[in-house]
Amino acid sequence: MKRLLPVWFGAYRREWLAGDLSAGLIAAVMLVPQSLGYAMLAGLPPEVGLYASILPVIAYAWLGSSMTLAVGPVAVASLMTASALHPLAVAGSAHYVMLAGQLALLSGLMLLAFGVLRLGFLAHFLSHPVVSGFLSGSSLLIAVGQFKHVLGVKVEGHGMLETTLGLVRALPDTNRTTLLVGGSTLAFLWVARRWFPGWFRRAGLSPDRADLAARFAPMLAVIVWTSLTALLELDRTSGLAVVGQFPSGLPTFPGWDALLPSRSVLADLALPALLLALVGFVESVSMAQSLAQRRQQRILPDRELLGLGAANLASAVSGSYPIIGGLSRSVINYAAGAQSPLASVVSALLMVLILLFFSSLFHPLPHAVLAAAIIVAVSSLIDVQAFRRAWAYDRADGMSLIASFVGVLVFGVEAGIVIGVSLSLAVIVWRSSHPHIAVVGRVLGTEHFRNINRYRVDTLPGVLAIRVDESLFFANAMEVESRIEALLAADDSVKRVVISCAGVNQVDTTALHMLTTLETDLARRGIRLDLAEVKGPVMDRLRDTEFGIRVADRVYLSLHDAMAADFKPPVR
Amino acid sequence: MKRLLPVWFGAYRREWLAGDLSAGLIAAVMLVPQSLGYAMLAGLPPEVGLYASILPVIAYAWLGSSMTLAVGPVAVASLMTASALHPLAVAGSAHYVMLAGQLALLSGLMLLAFGVLRLGFLAHFLSHPVVSGFLSGSSLLIAVGQFKHVLGVKVEGHGMLETTLGLVRALPDTNRTTLLVGGSTLAFLWVARRWFPGWFRRAGLSPDRADLAARFAPMLAVIVWTSLTALLELDRTSGLAVVGQFPSGLPTFPGWDALLPSRSVLADLALPALLLALVGFVESVSMAQSLAQRRQQRILPDRELLGLGAANLASAVSGSYPIIGGLSRSVINYAAGAQSPLASVVSALLMVLILLFFSSLFHPLPHAVLAAAIIVAVSSLIDVQAFRRAWAYDRADGMSLIASFVGVLVFGVEAGIVIGVSLSLAVIVWRSSHPHIAVVGRVLGTEHFRNINRYRVDTLPGVLAIRVDESLFFANAMEVESRIEALLAADDSVKRVVISCAGVNQVDTTALHMLTTLETDLARRGIRLDLAEVKGPVMDRLRDTEFGIRVADRVYLSLHDAMAADFKPPVR
Repeated sequence: MKRLLPVWFGAYRREWLAGDLSAGLIAAVMLVPQSLGYAMLAGLPPEVGLYASILPVIAYAWLGSSMTLAVGPVAVASLMTASALHPLAVAGSAHYVMLAGQLALLSGLMLLAFGVLRLGFLAHFLSHPVVSGFLSGSSLLIAVGQFKHVLGVKVEGHGMLETTLGLVRALPDTNRTTLLVGGSTLAFLWVARRWFPGWFRRAGLSPDRADLAARFAPMLAVIVWTSLTALLELDRTSGLAVVGQFPSGLPTFPGWDALLPSRSVLADLALPALLLALVGFVESVSMAQSLAQRRQQRILPDRELLGLGAANLASAVSGSYPIIGGLSRSVINYAAGAQSPLASVVSALLMVLILLFFSSLFHPLPHAVLAAAIIVAVSSLIDVQAFRRAWAYDRADGMSLIASFVGVLVFGVEAGIVIGVSLSLAVIVWRSSHPHIAVVGRVLGTEHFRNINRYRVDTLPGVLAIRVDESLFFANAMEVESRIEALLAADDSVKRVVISCAGVNQVDTTALHMLTTLETDLARRGIRLDLAEVKGPVMDRLRDTEFGIRVADRVYLSLHDAMAADFKPPVR
Repeated sequence: MKRLLPVWFGAYRREWLAGDLSAGLIAAVMLVPQSLGYAMLAGLPPEVGLYASILPVIAYAWLGSSMTLAVGPVAVASLMTASALHPLAVAGSAHYVMLAGQLALLSGLMLLAFGVLRLGFLAHFLSHPVVSGFLSGSSLLIAVGQFKHVLGVKVEGHGMLETTLGLVRALPDTNRTTLLVGGSTLAFLWVARRWFPGWFRRAGLSPDRADLAARFAPMLAVIVWTSLTALLELDRTSGLAVVGQFPSGLPTFPGWDALLPSRSVLADLALPALLLALVGFVESVSMAQSLAQRRQQRILPDRELLGLGAANLASAVSGSYPIIGGLSRSVINYAAGAQSPLASVVSALLMVLILLFFSSLFHPLPHAVLAAAIIVAVSSLIDVQAFRRAWAYDRADGMSLIASFVGVLVFGVEAGIVIGVSLSLAVIVWRSSHPHIAVVGRVLGTEHFRNINRYRVDTLPGVLAIRVDESLFFANAMEVESRIEALLAADDSVKRVVISCAGVNQVDTTALHMLTTLETDLARRGIRLDLAEVKGPVMDRLRDTEFGIRVADRVYLSLHDAMAADFKPPVR
């Protein structure tokens, strides 16, 4: 019985209730326009966005481990959904909605499988730079794509170039009323994001409260422009696009026939579903972790997989689309004082009330206002700073970031992430294939050996002591051998080579073969090959090989041990 | 002027001449049937095999660096050619011959480009187990494919399964004369390979000479059965397949139109040409190196690329097909006393004489004899021992070997090698993502720290000293963090964590982020994070980061330095 209850249930304290209730209320009100906007971005009817904010939210509250993460429709997941579905169906059609549910189902099943099989580590193959480049690229793509709603023009096409060219070509058709609504909202929201938190703080609010208050700005724009549109009937008189009629009432189960994908659809949706699962997991966990750290709580990644998986299944069975943890919804939730997932449950229940009784209030909401809100929201995700930092610290990481950024813009979201991951894996292999090798000597007055170019060290004549800073394997075995030969060619007095294996974490068959022939070859030339600081797991394997047997009495605990007999005792 | 001469030209000694002349003569005679057989295996007319033994051999002698490597038609290259071309043209047709020349041209250009751009390291991505599995698989495929010639039946199809099933189905159609010829040759050659070297050695020959004499066995079989076939007209009376008429005279330039591939052919041949170049390079260099070591000579890999590239271009312009360094031709060359590439030049010139005046001698040579010789030759390349060794030493290497072996048999030569390489790269990343982490203590009486589970060590209460045996990067950053957290959870007295970075050869952006949050998090819990044995190149990067600045005064030269103050002085 107890195992069926959420992890936070037993620990619930009465004093949390006030915070959870008010946070739930605030979140519900603020999330309605956001949910409508993201559904529009995903190419789905507006009500689908609201459906995604009910059952999935409750499912996550039940199984997830974060006290404050809020799941629901999110910009990136909406873009990935649109990108996966647009080759398969017409946006907004019943077939499209059905496919969106199937995508959520697949993604949810994958997340659950990863959770049960403890495959969460798969997400670690998405490096920070790749995820950062991917998010920046996606955000830019989303922002550019939304400008058509701000101008009130029609633009076909999905890539960055197509959309931009389409926008430029459509400029003469701009609808003035739409531009007034969209442009003013954009300007207002930009000012609000930039300066409101500072103003509110100076007015005496705490930083969290000031941030929360500033986040009411989109709601204000929604209220003002929706009222004006309704009063002046701008949609009929000036051609201003609005959300329009959508069914009120609760989501219904779409039926098994609609939920289960056919084999050909399965093939088309498998990769997008996998990427949604991985990106969703990485994003949700890192967000949950940064929120948890502020309150000294802990996140259980395996529970997160189950929570997100269940949430996506819940989304699928309530006729909605893939969801993940959202940054702005989580921050609103946190800043509004949510203490536990009960806040999310409250907001989900309020969403039911809104769907049942107040949905008509949102019919005159202009698309341009939603688009402006999306543009301002995603533009804060374009992270130039992350690129600068990655580039300064590590060129290869900078390049992975750029590759996934450009990949998303040029080839689309899926290709972008695949390109980024492939490049970052290639870098690993490339780097390991060009190992750093240092000639080392004994640091004066110690038993420790360091690079002769960096430290004041003692060396022994006729002895070449080197440290190989990489595991030995097929891609670098030849390189290591020829670097050693080059060092020997440069000094023909060498009668003994000592290799420090402190950085050698593995030795594969190819490298073992290299070592065997190197040892034989050196022995024939009268040069002895010794090893030092071989790690336990490496030595376990080497011990029974031809090479291991041959050098058995020449493997030293440390370089110091290998050479102590020949050095004069250190003068301290 | 001097740069245009071969590297061995200046060093040539008069006393080498006798060895080179006799080796050239022996090689020429022995290589005629081999060249005819491999052309047949590649699906090409017999004379093409002889063409491949003239100009390419001279081109390699001019640019290569090995004193004894012999290039020419080789079993594996012939199989790879057949496998690349059979989807594109009918074996033996003029179009097929043209495509074979284009394949040699592409492969040659790639080899030259690798040589000029110093990209020879690309070949290092073919690990020993992958190459070994590939060669064993190819050899088995070749051997099985040749049995149809021994039985005198027609079998269509290229995969292992198809060929085997075809053979079984065709058994009733076996031609008795062909089976007599092929079967007896097979038995004779098998006995020759197995016992002749031993017999000859016991008869007083040196090991090299005994080996060489045993290698005359195929020639003997060729002479006996060709004479009998001619005398008894077995080809006409019993349906025995023979080499038959082929044009005598020298190869001619096929013309630029025939040499330059169209765009669509280019797309089809690019991957096969690349794999031919890489496999050819790896095989040739490793063979050349093992021969050079016996005579204390050196191989220059970049020269080998140029030599092999030029040889393939020469093959293309003389209407022939891709060639690489061959094991049996090189061993014959070496054992027959070749001292320099002049031996190859001699054999090439003799090949010209044979083509001009003696080619008709080979017309009655039965296919069954060639097939039996190929089967015995390649069956020695099926290396079960290599699999046993790889498997015993390293499961992952054993699996890479099996993967490329099975890949070749099931999906073909190209897919096999691609599967093997992908798997071996995946293993690298997989391993690095599950690093070995050891808790270490000070080995009694020394300044050195080792695994507490393997050595008798001292530890300090409240201090957790660990060694991470892997570079820190995106795929293992989270894992390392959670392993450290698990160690801390198991011992709540810990107030200080010291990480030994002796095995950490790189720290990427993702891992840096992990270290930064780990340090902050530990600091808040009152636990100090120190580093020791950070390598120069790693420290250079860390120094200017937020993390590097924060821990700057807690980076120690060694674990000993980090903990010396707290330990009582060692009792020696």
